[in-house]
Amino acid sequence: MRLRSLSWEQYQELDAEAKAPYLMDNGRPQHVLIPQQFRRAELDNLCALATEIRRTAKIRAGADFLGNVLSHKRAMLYFTQPSTRTFLSHQAACLILGLKTGEVRDTATSSEIKGESREDSVRTFSSYFDLIIMRSKERGLAERMAWVLSQSERPIPIINAGSGHDQHPTQAVLDIYTLQRSFETRGGIDGKRIVFVGDLARGRTVRSLATLLTNYKDVSIGFVAPDSFQIGPDIIELLRSRGVRFDVSADFEAALPDADAVYMTRVQDEWDTETGQSARVDVSKFHLRPDDLKRMKPTAVIMHPLPRREEIPESIDRDPRAMYWRQMRNGMWVRTALIAQIFNVDEDIRSYFRQHVRGY
Amino acid sequence: MRLRSLSWEQYQELDAEAKAPYLMDNGRPQHVLIPQQFRRAELDNLCALATEIRRTAKIRAGADFLGNVLSHKRAMLYFTQPSTRTFLSHQAACLILGLKTGEVRDTATSSEIKGESREDSVRTFSSYFDLIIMRSKERGLAERMAWVLSQSERPIPIINAGSGHDQHPTQAVLDIYTLQRSFETRGGIDGKRIVFVGDLARGRTVRSLATLLTNYKDVSIGFVAPDSFQIGPDIIELLRSRGVRFDVSADFEAALPDADAVYMTRVQDEWDTETGQSARVDVSKFHLRPDDLKRMKPTAVIMHPLPRREEIPESIDRDPRAMYWRQMRNGMWVRTALIAQIFNVDEDIRSYFRQHVRGY
Amino acid sequence: MRLRSLSWEQYQELDAEAKAPYLMDNGRPQHVLIPQQFRRAELDNLCALATEIRRTAKIRAGADFLGNVLSHKRAMLYFTQPSTRTFLSHQAACLILGLKTGEVRDTATSSEIKGESREDSVRTFSSYFDLIIMRSKERGLAERMAWVLSQSERPIPIINAGSGHDQHPTQAVLDIYTLQRSFETRGGIDGKRIVFVGDLARGRTVRSLATLLTNYKDVSIGFVAPDSFQIGPDIIELLRSRGVRFDVSADFEAALPDADAVYMTRVQDEWDTETGQSARVDVSKFHLRPDDLKRMKPTAVIMHPLPRREEIPESIDRDPRAMYWRQMRNGMWVRTALIAQIFNVDEDIRSYFRQHVRGY
Repeated sequence: MRLRSLSWEQYQELDAEAKAPYLMDNGRPQHVLIPQQFRRAELDNLCALATEIRRTAKIRAGADFLGNVLSHKRAMLYFTQPSTRTFLSHQAACLILGLKTGEVRDTATSSEIKGESREDSVRTFSSYFDLIIMRSKERGLAERMAWVLSQSERPIPIINAGSGHDQHPTQAVLDIYTLQRSFETRGGIDGKRIVFVGDLARGRTVRSLATLLTNYKDVSIGFVAPDSFQIGPDIIELLRSRGVRFDVSADFEAALPDADAVYMTRVQDEWDTETGQSARVDVSKFHLRPDDLKRMKPTAVIMHPLPRREEIPESIDRDPRAMYWRQMRNGMWVRTALIAQIFNVDEDIRSYFRQHVRGY
Repeated sequence: MRLRSLSWEQYQELDAEAKAPYLMDNGRPQHVLIPQQFRRAELDNLCALATEIRRTAKIRAGADFLGNVLSHKRAMLYFTQPSTRTFLSHQAACLILGLKTGEVRDTATSSEIKGESREDSVRTFSSYFDLIIMRSKERGLAERMAWVLSQSERPIPIINAGSGHDQHPTQAVLDIYTLQRSFETRGGIDGKRIVFVGDLARGRTVRSLATLLTNYKDVSIGFVAPDSFQIGPDIIELLRSRGVRFDVSADFEAALPDADAVYMTRVQDEWDTETGQSARVDVSKFHLRPDDLKRMKPTAVIMHPLPRREEIPESIDRDPRAMYWRQMRNGMWVRTALIAQIFNVDEDIRSYFRQHVRGY
Repeated sequence: MRLRSLSWEQYQELDAEAKAPYLMDNGRPQHVLIPQQFRRAELDNLCALATEIRRTAKIRAGADFLGNVLSHKRAMLYFTQPSTRTFLSHQAACLILGLKTGEVRDTATSSEIKGESREDSVRTFSSYFDLIIMRSKERGLAERMAWVLSQSERPIPIINAGSGHDQHPTQAVLDIYTLQRSFETRGGIDGKRIVFVGDLARGRTVRSLATLLTNYKDVSIGFVAPDSFQIGPDIIELLRSRGVRFDVSADFEAALPDADAVYMTRVQDEWDTETGQSARVDVSKFHLRPDDLKRMKPTAVIMHPLPRREEIPESIDRDPRAMYWRQMRNGMWVRTALIAQIFNVDEDIRSYFRQHVRGY
C-alpha cells in the first residue's frame, strides 16, 4: 500500500496499527515514523540484523565493506529540537554505511527566516539528499513531512528521530534491542517483567517502548512514579486491550525485587508549561541508590535513555547490571540496521556476514 | 592572463567583461565570481557537462566513479550570510565528486572575534582546504578574496555563492541550465521570451540571469514589477548596449500569454534599510494565481529561485509547467559541473560518460 | 603503565614529567594531553613522520593511500571554546587519514542543557566515536576526560586542542616542527636562539613551546614583553632547573639582531578579567615593523600562532622569513602525524613512503 495514494486527511484518520501497511514494504520500513509500524517478526529481524552489523563492523574488512554499501547516498540530519545524543547516534549510523551527511541544527540559519514554509524546507532537503532524519518539538511533524514528500517527485524516506511528546520510534526499537540482547540466553523478552520508573507522563521513550512490548508474550509491566508523573490513560487503555499484565504504583522499593529490567527516566522539565512545575514534585524517592542494587535480581538489567541527572549516581555505572551505556551504543547499531533496511541493502549485509564474519 | 599579475586597484578598474580573461583558463573557470565570466560557448559546455554528470550519477557504478574523482580534495563552505538552500546545494555538489567538506556558518565561532581580519581568515581556510565556497552580505567580497589568495603561496579557487546585492553567478548559471533543459527540444534559449516578475530591484538572481541572457540570440525580456521594485538602470543600459529586446511594465496579466518562461521572485525584505519599507508596496497583483495558468502557453515554464512566499501557491506545484523544484535540483548538477571544471576533471568525466553511460 | 590503574587523585599528584609514561606507549601517544609527554626522541620521530605524510599527500596515489588508512574510524571534534583555526586544522588532519568527523561546537545544542554532566557527555561521544579532539576554557579538562574514559568500557583516545590558560600541546608540537623545518639544513634546533615577544603571561602557546625547547641542546631563549605581560615564574623556574639559558627584557629592538626565530604573539584580551585591563598596557613597542626586518638575521624566521592583529603588518607577509602561514599549515601535518601514531598506523605510512614516495 502506498502512502501517496492517501490524502493527508485519510492518513490522519487511520489509527497507528492501520498506518503500518503504508509505512512498511515486505517487512522493510519505507519510513520510520511510529513504533507501531514494527511487529514481532520485524523486530526480531531488525535485532538480528543489528547484531550482524555490529559484528561485521568489528573486523577491518567488514567495516570497509559496510562503508561502501551506501557511499553513493546522502543523508540530511534536520534537528530543530536539540539532542546531541540522538544526533550523533544517527550520524554515526550513516557514517558506518558510508552515507555522507549534511545537517541543519539551527532554524535561524535556514530559509525559514525568509518566510519559507516547513513543507518547502523539507522539499528542499529532499532535492539534495536521499534520506531525511528529523527531530522536532512539533507533534506529528515527521509523519506530515513523509506524506508531503510522498506527493512530490522525490518521495525520499524519513526517519523520525523524535517529534513532539509522544513519538520516538528509533529509541523504542533500540530499547527492544537492548532487552533482547540482555535476555538472549534466557528466552528473550517473552515472560519478562519490565519496570518503568520516573517521569512516565512526559517521557516519550517509555510510551513508545510500552507500545512495542505488546508484541511479546507474557510480558508484565510496572509503572512506578509519583501520581502527577504517572503513565497516561491511552497507554493503560492500549495494554488492557492487548491483554498485557501491568500495574501502577508509587512504591519504588517494592518494585525492584521481581524486575528483570528497571527502566529509569529523568524528569523532563524542558516540557514544563509553567516555570518550576516539575520542581514541586518530590522525585527523590524514585532515584536508584547503591543500596537498592541488593534488592534487585542478579540477572536484572538497569536501563536509562540518558541523559541522566540524579536518578542514577555514577557509582552504579560499574555494576555489571548497568546497561545504559551499552544501550546507548546499541542505538547506533539499530539505527544502522534501520537505514540498511530502508535502502534495501540488508540482505547484502546479511549475506556478507554469513560468508565472512560468522564464526570469525 | 593571471589574476596575480594585477594589483587590486587594477582589477577593480576593469569592467565585468574585461575581468573574464583573468577568471577563465582555456574555457574553464579558475574562480566562479561573476556571471559575466561565462560566454555562450562556455555556458553551452557547462550545460552539457551538467547533464552528463546527472546521468552518470544515476547509475551506481557512475556514482562511485564520480565519488572518487576529487576524493583527495577538501572544500570549505564559508557562509556568513545564511542560506540553507545554497549551502546544501553546494555541499551536495562537493559530496557527489567526493570532496570532503568543512564549514563556517557563524562568524561568532570564528577567529574574527579575536580581531582577525577577513583576509587572514580566508588565508587560514586556504591553508587547510583546496576550494572555498563563500557567501556574504558584503558586495564584492568573493572577488576581493580571490585576489588576496592570488597573491599568496596557496592561490586556491573561490566560488562566489552570493555576495552583496548584485552577484550570484552560480544561481544565474543554474537558471540558464534550467531554461536550456526546458527548451531543449524547441531550439534552446534563442528566440524565447523570458518574463521576470516581482522584486527586480533587489533580487540578485534576476540581475545575474538578465546579464547572462545577453549571450543568446533574439531573446526578449519582460520586467514586470511595481515601480519601486523595478529593474535597475544599469541592467537596462546593459541590455540596450547589447541590442537585447526588453520591456518594462506593471501589468502582470498582460505579460503572461506570450511568455516562454515566467520567472517569479519574492520580496527581499531582508535588505530593507527601514523597517516595513517593503510592506508599504502592494505586491499581491504580482502573485501567480491558479487562474493565471490558463493565460500561459502550454509549453511555458514557471521558475522561481526559492524560497517562495505567497507569490506562488502550493497548488500550482502540480502543474507540469512548474519548474522551480527541478530548477533547484539543477543547481546541484550545475555546481557539480563548475567544481569539476575548476579542478580540471571535466574531461575525465565526459570520457567516462561516453564510454559507460551514453545509451545506457 | 596504564592510566586506568590510577585514581584521579593519584594522577593529579604527579608532576608533568611523571605523567608521561601513562600517556605514551612505546613512543606513541595514547592521548595527547600535555607538552611534557613528548621528549626529544619522540619529537624527532614525530617531525620525520609529519614530513613523510606531507610528501605522501602531494601525490594522488599517496593521498588515496592516506585517505584509506583510518577510513573505518570516526572522530568527534568537541570545541566549546571557539577556535576556527584549530578546529579546521584538526578536521583537515582527520580527513587526510580518512577519518569521518562529527562535531559539537556549541554547548547550547547539547544535552548539557538537560542537566547532563560533562563526564556523561564525553562518555556519550565515546560511544559513537573512536577519537575525541576537545578544546575548552576549563583548565585540565582534557586530562580529566581522558582519565574518566580510562575507567569506562570504551577508553578511546583524547587530543587536547587547548584547555585553559596553560595547555596547548599540539600547538607546541607544530611550533617545534616549524623550527625544525626552518633550521633543517643548519643543524636543527640545537644551539639556536628563540625570542618570544608580546603577551607571554597568557599565551599558552609560548608556555608550551618554551617547555618543549628544554629538550634541545644549547638553546637560548629571550622573553621580550612589557612587565605586566612577562612570562610566568613557573616557566622561569623550569628553565633554571634544566639549565636552559634565557633572558627577560622589555627591549624589542635589542632582541632582534641575534634571534634565529622571532616568535610574535597577540594580546590575549579575551582572558581579561576586568574590561579594558589589556588596553591599559602599551604594546605598540612590541610590534614588528617593516624597518625591523633590516635588524634581523637573513636566516631568521618570524613565527606567530595566529590570529594576529597589529603586531605584524600584512606587508611583512611577503618577506621570505615570514613563516607564520607555513607554520599554520605545518599544524595540519603534525596533527595528522599525531593521529596516525595514536592509532598505530604510523609504521604503515612510513613503509608506504619508503616504497612509493621517497625519491619521487
